This record gives sequence, C-alpha cells and structure tokens, in this order.
Amino acid sequence: MKFEVTILGSSSATPVFNRNPSAQLLNCNEKYYLIDCGEGTQQQLTKYNLKASRIDYIFISHLHGDHYFGLIGLLSSLHLNGRIKPMQIFGPKHLLEILEIQFKYSDTVLRYPIEFFPIEADKSVQIFENSDLTVKTIILNHRIPTTGFIFQQKKRQRKLIKEKTDQVPMAYYTSLKKGIDVELPNGDILRSEDYTTEADAPRCYAYCSDTLFDERYFDTIKDCDTLYHEATFMHDLLERAKETHHTTALQAAEVAKITGAKKLLIGHFSSRYKTLQMLFEEAQSVFENTELAIEGRTFQL
Amino acid sequence: MKFEVTILGSSSATPVFNRNPSAQLLNCNEKYYLIDCGEGTQQQLTKYNLKASRIDYIFISHLHGDHYFGLIGLLSSLHLNGRIKPMQIFGPKHLLEILEIQFKYSDTVLRYPIEFFPIEADKSVQIFENSDLTVKTIILNHRIPTTGFIFQQKKRQRKLIKEKTDQVPMAYYTSLKKGIDVELPNGDILRSEDYTTEADAPRCYAYCSDTLFDERYFDTIKDCDTLYHEATFMHDLLERAKETHHTTALQAAEVAKITGAKKLLIGHFSSRYKTLQMLFEEAQSVFENTELAIEGRTFQL
Repeated sequence: MKFEVTILGSSSATPVFNRNPSAQLLNCNEKYYLIDCGEGTQQQLTKYNLKASRIDYIFISHLHGDHYFGLIGLLSSLHLNGRIKPMQIFGPKHLLEILEIQFKYSDTVLRYPIEFFPIEADKSVQIFENSDLTVKTIILNHRIPTTGFIFQQKKRQRKLIKEKTDQVPMAYYTSLKKGIDVELPNGDILRSEDYTTEADAPRCYAYCSDTLFDERYFDTIKDCDTLYHEATFMHDLLERAKETHHTTALQAAEVAKITGAKKLLIGHFSSRYKTLQMLFEEAQSVFENTELAIEGRTFQL
Repeated sequence: MKFEVTILGSSSATPVFNRNPSAQLLNCNEKYYLIDCGEGTQQQLTKYNLKASRIDYIFISHLHGDHYFGLIGLLSSLHLNGRIKPMQIFGPKHLLEILEIQFKYSDTVLRYPIEFFPIEADKSVQIFENSDLTVKTIILNHRIPTTGFIFQQKKRQRKLIKEKTDQVPMAYYTSLKKGIDVELPNGDILRSEDYTTEADAPRCYAYCSDTLFDERYFDTIKDCDTLYHEATFMHDLLERAKETHHTTALQAAEVAKITGAKKLLIGHFSSRYKTLQMLFEEAQSVFENTELAIEGRTFQL
C-alpha cells in the first residue's frame, strides 16, 4: 500500500530562495491528505503534477500564515474547477471564521461542502479514522496553539502468495487474507498461513511543525517510523530558537533519537540559510538517517 | 521620469500554465505602487527582482480572491523582514476586516502601520495624490463592487538644456524649470525659454480589472496613454463573458479604440487558453497597438 509524502514547502515564515512556506502531500493508498498549506501551495501542486482535486483531507497545524495562507486560494480554485465532493478540514477553530469571511465578501457559495473539524491544541486525541489510517494530534509548544499530526496506518491484511492464487477460488481470498482458515465444499481445509504471508507492519508518520524542543510531546511520537520535525535554526542560534519557540537542527535530531524514529525529515528552514547543507550535517551528526524535506522530494514512509 | 508597469500575474480565477493571478507593479519616479495582489505575488516580486520593501502603496480592485489572496502573505513577510514605514492600502472596505482577523489569530502586531483607505465602488473619485501623480477610481461593472484605477502623472517641470547649465547659477534652476524668468544681481535677465525645453507631457495609465464591457466607464478613461483592460475570453464566448461579467479580447480592443488609448495591454486570461496568441490577434484586429500583459514583461507607459 502506498504511503509516501511529497514536500511542497520547506521555508519558515517567508518564501525565499525558491523555497515555499510549509505544505506536504501525504499519499496513503492513493488517497491524498494535505498537511499545512502555505501561500503558493496550489501552484506547487501543479508544479509537481499532483492533482489538487484528489485531496479530500486537509490538516492545518496552526494559524501562522506560513502554514495556511494558501488554503483559501486552493479551496477557491477547487470550487472554480467544479468540485462537488466534500472537503474535510481539520484545524484551529478560528480557521473556519477566516475562510468564511473571505467567501462572504467575494459572494462565493462553494459548490462543495466543507466539513470542518476544529482541533483543540491542549490534548492529544484521535481526530480522524478511515479504513487506511488514523490521525492523532501532537501537542506542540509554540507561540500560538499548535498541533502536529501522527498518521498511523492500520494493521493490514496478510498477503496472498502469488504463486498459489490459482489453487484458491477467489471467493476465499478475503478470509485467507484476514488470517481465517476456510473449508471447501469437499471438506478440505485451506489454512491461511499456507496461502498468505505476514502483512507488512503498519507504518506511521509524525509531523511536528513549529515547536520548541519540549519532552512533553515525545511520548506521543514514540517509535514512529518517519518523523518530520521542524529545524528552523542551526544550534548556534539556540537562544533565538527558544525566543521564537522553534527548534534547532541538532535538537530535531535529538528528538528523533530519543523517540526512536527510524528516519528523520527536517524542514521549516529560516530565511537566513541560503543553502541547507550545514543544517543537514548538524542533524546527521546526531541522527544518521536524516533527510532534508525540500520541495519536490517524495519520501517512502 | 520613470513611469512603467511590470506584470506579475495575468491569470483569471486560478493560477495555470505558469500564469499567476492578477498583480502589477507600477514604478513612477522610483516609487512602487502595487495594483492587485493575487496569491503568489510576493514570490513573483522575488522572481523578477523587485523589492517588496519598496512598495508604499497598494491598490486592490475588488474582493475576488484572484485579486487579493496574496496580500496577507506580502504584508506578513514585510513585517517579518523588519519594515517600519507605513503602508497605504486602498481597497474595498471589508478588506481591512479580512486582514485584521488573520493578524489577530496569528497574534501578530505589525511593526509598521497600515493606513487603510476604503474605496466606494459607486463613484469615480480621486483617492490619492502625491508630487508625482494622482490616482482616481473607475467604476467597473462586475459581480461584486469593483473599481479600476487611473494613475495620472502630474504636469512636470520644463527641462534644463544640458549644454547651457554651466551658464546658470544652480540657485536659479528651480525657477527656470518652473518657467519663471530670473534677474541676476547685475540686472541681466535669464529667460526660462532660453535655458529650458518643454516638459514631457504627463502620461496616464488606466487599469481596468474585471468588468463587463459597459460604456458608462468610457468617459473616465478617455484619452489615457496606456489602457490595461481585462480580456478574459475570446469573442466566441461573448455570452459566457456577459454571464460572468467579463470582457472579450475583441471588446477590450473596442474600449481602447473608443476611448482613444494610445496603447492597450490585455490580461486576466481564462484558464481555458493554454496559449494566448489567438487572444492577442483578436484584439489586434481591432486595435493595432495591443500587447499581452504577461508575467515578467515591463511596459513603458
């Protein structure tokens, strides 16, 4: 089952050096989940050939503009392009008010429904579930209420052994994949474990946008396969990071190490860094399996 | 005196084919005036090496998103980049409410003052004046209240004849340029017309964003040197243009012809047109001196 994320924006605060503000597109089993939506996100989706119309779920971490100023434009374009299926949006409660006032004064009545789910930033709770995954919030520590998100795949079915499929009537596939033995009309028993192999372990992706390094959220993201963590500054600017409630590259790597992540993606880079190699090396010095979450890169989770 | 406009966006409704939504930067005597501000305008300014920090005046024609969704991001970035000088914004009265709600929920107190001047869309009035130009509104006919803008240069001073400047003490330059003869201490008279030539004629630029072809605004834009006029559709879609309160390329050219413009810029192209040559040719068939107002082009006005 596909489980990958494409980075649409890696810049903090302002767009610079061809870096766009925060946005990521998660593809889980060919369903699209948008995580944050900085200005220009719809242009980035077009650039990377990702159809905005396929997005059905949007998660906004907080109301700093670099994480949501592109949302109103994206929603408007979907309307103008004829969307009729609902859009589910999860975000801080005032986000809806911000969207509605803009639709009101442009005299826009959307052709499709927005289903809005306000997030409370002071508790880590499950906010979404479908057959593929659950989404839970992470309580982050930023200047305004901010949550991260954990996308946790569900336990998946066992996999049919391809070479044996022609020995089994299709009607029994579902049971066998669920681990259930089946009895044929002639009394023979087909044992699930003879015809299937273990399911892939369900994977999880944690998205920690703007936050102070704060051990209170470490438990929530424990043992995640891939951790995206902001790394706005180099560690020589630790005081600046603290003042602005951000994290350094070194600290992001420490979070990955402490919480047992398998892979770390760092992003949300300050505009003071024209190139990112130093941030990458700083994080990698603490946590080997680090990658730069830069525009256009797709990571298998 | 410099009087030129750089096109930052030429797309109607949604960004497509590398065309951005409406925005133009007017440079008059090295002062920057931003006209409309679709999503991604700050990125466009960077792309074309135009310093956003130099913009002191912003004019928003109406509250359809393709004309202002980039404003909140631009204003935020200026704040984050340390701006302290005021920004004057002219636009529909509800624009301020839309900006303020977003600053409120991001807990942002701008470091610089916004001086907001609400525009009434039902009368054509002068809304701005400085030593270089005046700005007057144009009552357009669109689905929501919409105004265009006329940027009218002021009558300028006569020009000193370079070869003769060393014959005249500098203290008299100002008077001579104003057309005033001066008397030297020895009683000699310096006649302005001997030392100066006629000033260039003051020029004007009319910006007609979204509108129906409607002769009621023709008087306001009469005899403008350069007319920017929206040309959303080809004329075979005249009915669609009427329904959506837009103009065809042919009609835009007729407006230029009827009102006595010297040059016509057309823009605000529908996303149905991947290439623009047909729109250009349609307009040019009626009005020879037509240009496509596309991203990155700068026009001397």
